[in-house]
Formats: sequence, C-alpha cells, structure tokens
Amino acid sequence: MKAVILAAGLGTRLGGVPKPLLRVGGCEIILRTIKLLSPHVSEFVIVASRYADQLDNFLRDKGFKYKLVKHNHPEKGNGYSLLVARDYVKGKFILTMGDHVYSEKFVERAMRGEGVIADRNPKYVDLDEATKIKVADGRVEDIGKNLKEFDCIDTGFFVLDDTIFDCAEKLRDKEEIPLSEIVKLARLPVTYIDGEFWMDVDTKEDVERANKALVFTAVKGSGDGFISRNLNRKISTRISAAVVNKVSPSQMTLISFLAGVFAALINLFSIPLAGLVYQSSSILDGCDGEIARASLNVSKKGGYVDSILDRFVDFLFLAIIALLYPNTAIIAIFAVFGSVMVSYTSEKYKAEFGESIFGKFRVLNYIPGKRDERIFLIMVFCLLSVISTEWLYWMFAVIAVLSFFRVIATLFTVILSKEN
Amino acid sequence: MKAVILAAGLGTRLGGVPKPLLRVGGCEIILRTIKLLSPHVSEFVIVASRYADQLDNFLRDKGFKYKLVKHNHPEKGNGYSLLVARDYVKGKFILTMGDHVYSEKFVERAMRGEGVIADRNPKYVDLDEATKIKVADGRVEDIGKNLKEFDCIDTGFFVLDDTIFDCAEKLRDKEEIPLSEIVKLARLPVTYIDGEFWMDVDTKEDVERANKALVFTAVKGSGDGFISRNLNRKISTRISAAVVNKVSPSQMTLISFLAGVFAALINLFSIPLAGLVYQSSSILDGCDGEIARASLNVSKKGGYVDSILDRFVDFLFLAIIALLYPNTAIIAIFAVFGSVMVSYTSEKYKAEFGESIFGKFRVLNYIPGKRDERIFLIMVFCLLSVISTEWLYWMFAVIAVLSFFRVIATLFTVILSKEN
Repeated sequence: MKAVILAAGLGTRLGGVPKPLLRVGGCEIILRTIKLLSPHVSEFVIVASRYADQLDNFLRDKGFKYKLVKHNHPEKGNGYSLLVARDYVKGKFILTMGDHVYSEKFVERAMRGEGVIADRNPKYVDLDEATKIKVADGRVEDIGKNLKEFDCIDTGFFVLDDTIFDCAEKLRDKEEIPLSEIVKLARLPVTYIDGEFWMDVDTKEDVERANKALVFTAVKGSGDGFISRNLNRKISTRISAAVVNKVSPSQMTLISFLAGVFAALINLFSIPLAGLVYQSSSILDGCDGEIARASLNVSKKGGYVDSILDRFVDFLFLAIIALLYPNTAIIAIFAVFGSVMVSYTSEKYKAEFGESIFGKFRVLNYIPGKRDERIFLIMVFCLLSVISTEWLYWMFAVIAVLSFFRVIATLFTVILSKEN
Repeated sequence: MKAVILAAGLGTRLGGVPKPLLRVGGCEIILRTIKLLSPHVSEFVIVASRYADQLDNFLRDKGFKYKLVKHNHPEKGNGYSLLVARDYVKGKFILTMGDHVYSEKFVERAMRGEGVIADRNPKYVDLDEATKIKVADGRVEDIGKNLKEFDCIDTGFFVLDDTIFDCAEKLRDKEEIPLSEIVKLARLPVTYIDGEFWMDVDTKEDVERANKALVFTAVKGSGDGFISRNLNRKISTRISAAVVNKVSPSQMTLISFLAGVFAALINLFSIPLAGLVYQSSSILDGCDGEIARASLNVSKKGGYVDSILDRFVDFLFLAIIALLYPNTAIIAIFAVFGSVMVSYTSEKYKAEFGESIFGKFRVLNYIPGKRDERIFLIMVFCLLSVISTEWLYWMFAVIAVLSFFRVIATLFTVILSKEN
C-alpha cells in the first residue's frame, strides 16, 4: 500500500521552516508521519510545491522509499495536490497532511478505518480553525470550517481507494479545489477515532502543547517504581517536553550519567547535598527514554548504554560513602551487590524468556527496591546524616535488605511460575 | 509429515527395560527420537508388540501426538512391522528404529535426505553387528550384515514415501520379512551423512559410550572462558556423562549451588581449602547445562535460576573473606560489583538485542574476566594466602581490575558497534 502526504501550499509561519520540517516532539512532522506509517506502507508519494527541494534534501538519507511529486500551483489548494498524485497510486491508499502530528496509537487505530478518520472528542485542537463534519448514515453529509452543526472533526487522515480521483476530476476546472469539497462530493464513509492525540500545528504554543502531549503519551508502561510513578515522572516529563526538540536521547543519557557521577563526587564535600543531587539525577534519568519514545528514536543501544551507566552511578555513589566511612564497608558490599542484582534478575529474565518480567509478573511492580525507590531512600538517609553519620550505616542496611528481599522475591516468583 | 518408529521385536537385553525406554544421555531412546523429529513431524506411528502397553504408558503424557499400532508377530521381523503401519501413513514419511540413538545434528541433516540414510564413516558403531550397504548409481545394490564388500552402514533412518509398501507387499507371505530385503527390493536411493553421532545401543558399554558422545556433542558453543575451555569442561563433561541418566539438570544446579555455598563457608575455617572447593564447584557448575543439552531438557527457567544462583555464590565467597579481613572490604566492593557486572553487561545485551553478545562480538570470548577465570584466580590467591594474607588484598584488586576492564571493554564494544 502507498501513502500520499500533501505538503504543498504550506507556509513557513513558524521560524522560517516549512511546516512539514518543523520539529515537534523531537521529530520533524513529516518524518514522524512516515515513521508511523512505514510498517504498513511500501512507498510514500509526497506532493510538494515551493519547498520541494528542501523536503527532498531532508528525506533523502532517511531510508524510506518515497516519490516526490512537485507542482507549481500551491494556490489551487489541497484538492489539486491530491489530483497531482493520481498517476502514482492504485487501489487502496492512505492520504494524510504534511503538517499534522499524530500519535502512534492514533495511526495504529486509523489504519484499520475507512474513509475520513474523524474525532468526536478532539482534545488538542482549536475548534475555530478545525474542519467540521456533519455525518449522515455513517457518511460525510457536509464538511467545512464554518459548519454550525457538526458531529466530529476531520483529522486530516484518510483511508481511501483510487475511485476518489474520479470525484476529484469533476472539480478539476475550478480555480481552487479544497480537499473538503472532494470529500463531500465523494460522500466518504466516516471512521471515528476519539480522544487519541493528533493535532494541526500552527503556533509556537501548539508546538509546546504537542511536545507535552507526545512526551506524556510516550511514558513507559511498566517497570517504574513508586517514586518514579508519583514523583520523578511528573518532573522528568516536564523537562523532556521542554528540551525534546533540542536534546537527543543519547545526549540526555550522557547528561544524566554525568549528573549521577557529579552527585557521587559531591559526597566528598557534603553528603546531604550529594543525596539531593543524586535524587535529581534520578529524575533526569527518566528523560532519555521519554525523549527517545516521543521522538520515535528508541534504540536498543541507547537502552543498553543507559542501563550499564546507571549501575556504575549507583555503585560509585555507595562506594564513595563507604570509602569515607570504612566501618560501613562490609554492609556496603551487601547494598552494592543487592542493587545490581535487582536489575540483573529482571534483565536476565528478558534475556532468557524474551519478554519483560514486569509485564509477566505484575506483582513485581509493587515490591519495593527499584532504583528510583532506592535512590529516594538514599537521599533521605543522606539528609539524616546531618544528625548523625550512623544513619549512613542504616542507609546501607536498608538498601541491602530491600534489594535482597526484592531479588529473592523475583527469583521465587520465576521458580514457582509455570514458565519453562 | 508422519514418522513411523519401529519398536516391535526389540528385546530387554539391558536391565529389564524394553530398549526404546532405555535412558541414554538422560533421555529415553524413543523419546529422544520423538523430540528431535517433532519440529518436522505432525504425528508419530509407533509399531509395537510385546511392550506396547509399557510404551503407551510412557508416552501418554509427553505431549506428542502419536498412534500406537500393535501386532502379535514380533518374530516376523522389522519388515513386517513396517507393513503393519501401511494404513496409517500417506505420501512422504520418516521411518526410524526405536532402539537407535541419534544426535540433533544427525537428524537435522537426515531430514533433508532421501531413501536410506547411510554413514561411510561410522564412529560409534560395532562393524560386526552393523548392516552394510553396497551402493551402485546412488542406490542400494546389496544390503546385509555379512556383506564382504560395502560402501556404507545403514543408520536405521529412512526418508520414504508410501510406494515402499508396494515392495513390502511382495514379501508379505514370507515367514520373516527383514527390513533390509524390502530396502534391497525397492533399490532405495542412498543419502550419505558421515561422522555424525548415531548408534544402535546393545550393551552397557554402548550406553556409556552414547552418554559420553551425547554430552560431548552438546557442549555450549560460546561464552566459555579460557579455564572453562581448557580445564573445567574436560572434567565436567566426564562427570555429566557419568551421571546424565541419574541426575536431572535442576538437581545438578542445586548441587553445584550448594557446593558453592559450602566453599564460601569453608573460608571460615580454611581459606586455601575454600579456594579449592570453590574451583571444584565451578567445574560442577558446567554440568547442569551439559546434562540439560544432552538430555534435550534445556529450560529457560533452568538457565535463569542457575545464573542468579551463580551470582549469589560469587558474592558470598568474596563477602565472607571481606568479613574475615575487614581491611579488604573497600576493594572487595569493587571486586563484587565488577564480578556481577561482567554478567550484567552480557545478559543486558541479550535482553535488548535478543542475541548472544558472544556470538555477535567474538573478541569478547578472548577478553579475560569471565566467571571460570575469576574463580580459578581466586583459588590461586586463596592458596597463596598460606604465605601471607596480604595476597587476599591482591586477590580483590586483581578481580576488580580484570572485571572492570572486561565490563568497560564490553560497553565500548557495543557503543562503537553499528548496532542500533
């Protein structure tokens, strides 16, 4: 199946960049659409006019098969652009707008639809600017920006077949051919997809809202501990949304690693301060994954490196405190070992069974001892060390007991399961 | 495709058990054949006579689809048993003997053959007892135990189609119908598979030879360190071969874990002795995998549990020495952390990328710091501690340096790779 992306006649209202090349959620709008569609689509037909060369330069080395179709009449409207694509598609195809941002879930559901994909509950869209649809018998009865009565909003995403071109041809001689007129003439069926994230980005505020929405909807499903769910994620998602267009996931991995190493070294001067910085680095540690998921840049290598560096930071933080207070060193061995083993027991599960242990055994999400929880506790004990350094001994003891308990619980969960 | 297994007319020469139910390499002969064929075969037709009920009881809960065909003329020979199976197979089918043991590789290659699968270089077979084949134009010219001139040995494994039954019918009225006569009459094509392990088990010595061969051919391909390849495996395979029919893989995991814990505790009395026992437990640690692979009983859960328990043993051994000599505790933290991380960096790779890091980056097989190497070094230092306990400090230092080096080398190997 092919997909037609209309990228002609789109202005550069935002920062001098043609809208399809605007970075939203860490990924250029048109590249996001292409990436999301690519599991279903064999070739993209991109209709462009003024910025065709810029688009071509951008897409050339991205590894997708595409055909750039250029025309010189952006003033003739979206419907004209669709007509230009006629020679390049046959049978069923996807039609979408080069300046619309869609979430992964939206596209997944839309792919299974037919005709106009429409939203009865648009959460992120400026209703004044939106194209409204009046539906009768499951088909488009009327469509337009100024409809008084309407049932849903046009999302700019269509699942069509090439009979649409016959309708489009009937309007060929008009000076301007809005896509909506073709849609109305064809009386396209309407598929509702309500409440998923999608939007048409027009202003700077739109970009910010889209960044936020894309980061929030991309938060990792499982594996987060209590502190992560209730504290760290609330802050890290805000940070990620703010920097998603400027910082790459691997840069973020490096930043949070350095913050962790920095925290460990601060122990040499002030243990309570170190604890606070450590907890901050733990918050930052969520950002690389959030940015990677929001920008559709998830990489196995990124996940690998991040996870190894986390282990080093945790080790370094505890080891430096043990160095400063050698009488805690023995119990520190238990805390250090237990901490790594919490990760080891879950990663080894994935290595053997090929699936996440947290998805398989939900109970493990509620046993304490995960990294976010350990770091929060370490911070608390670091602060308590102002009263007495004996608290540092208890810090190691608590971390050791918590993580050993979690590791043994994990081991027995697997042993007693029916897996083989 | 179906497979016919001939299990009639087979005596109980060994220990009162019908030969198909004799355990060889930790698995009953007929069950091994069924397990090895099951990826290719939808149903097994098992022809039995005297021991039909025993076979049925054994196979009932094993989870394979089979049809047991019983007849009362074991004295009429294998060819008669084949004739009895006639009504249950159509088109292409596999024919094999219920008392023959085949290795995984043999079956893999044989499945792609045609006619009689024959061996020009039989390594494990008593030539006097073997059925010899004289080949002409790629087909059986003559076959029998007493051929003076022959080209290869009949392995008892055939890839046939149902036209063989027409040949067999011609011999129906004979008092005894040897399979070899049908083979000769049909002038079956011959496929050579040379040098792979297969054998016909007749004596106690045969069982021992088969145990050994099955354990040896099942040794893990990659991931072993220098000490494992050159010392541990040479001993562990002998142990595995000796116990493969008596001890299950998970029993062996438990035994080697207890041996490791025992070694760690001996530190409280004698560190040099502890080192020796630790190295012995490291040898034993190879056995569970060997037995599991030889007996076709490899389980993900087994791999998981074994690997977690190994980490605990390593931790315990080092932690107890650190407890005894608290001035080594700081450096012990590094050694303990580094040791776990050696495993963590490779298991996390498999978790992310779904393949073994040792298969992907061959160089990692030659960087020291693996468990077998660390334990051997620890043993050496434990022995040196007789001279001066200062060697224990150096033990931790060397383990820490080696494993940190290995971990960092692994991390950079992945970072610099083209994987994503």
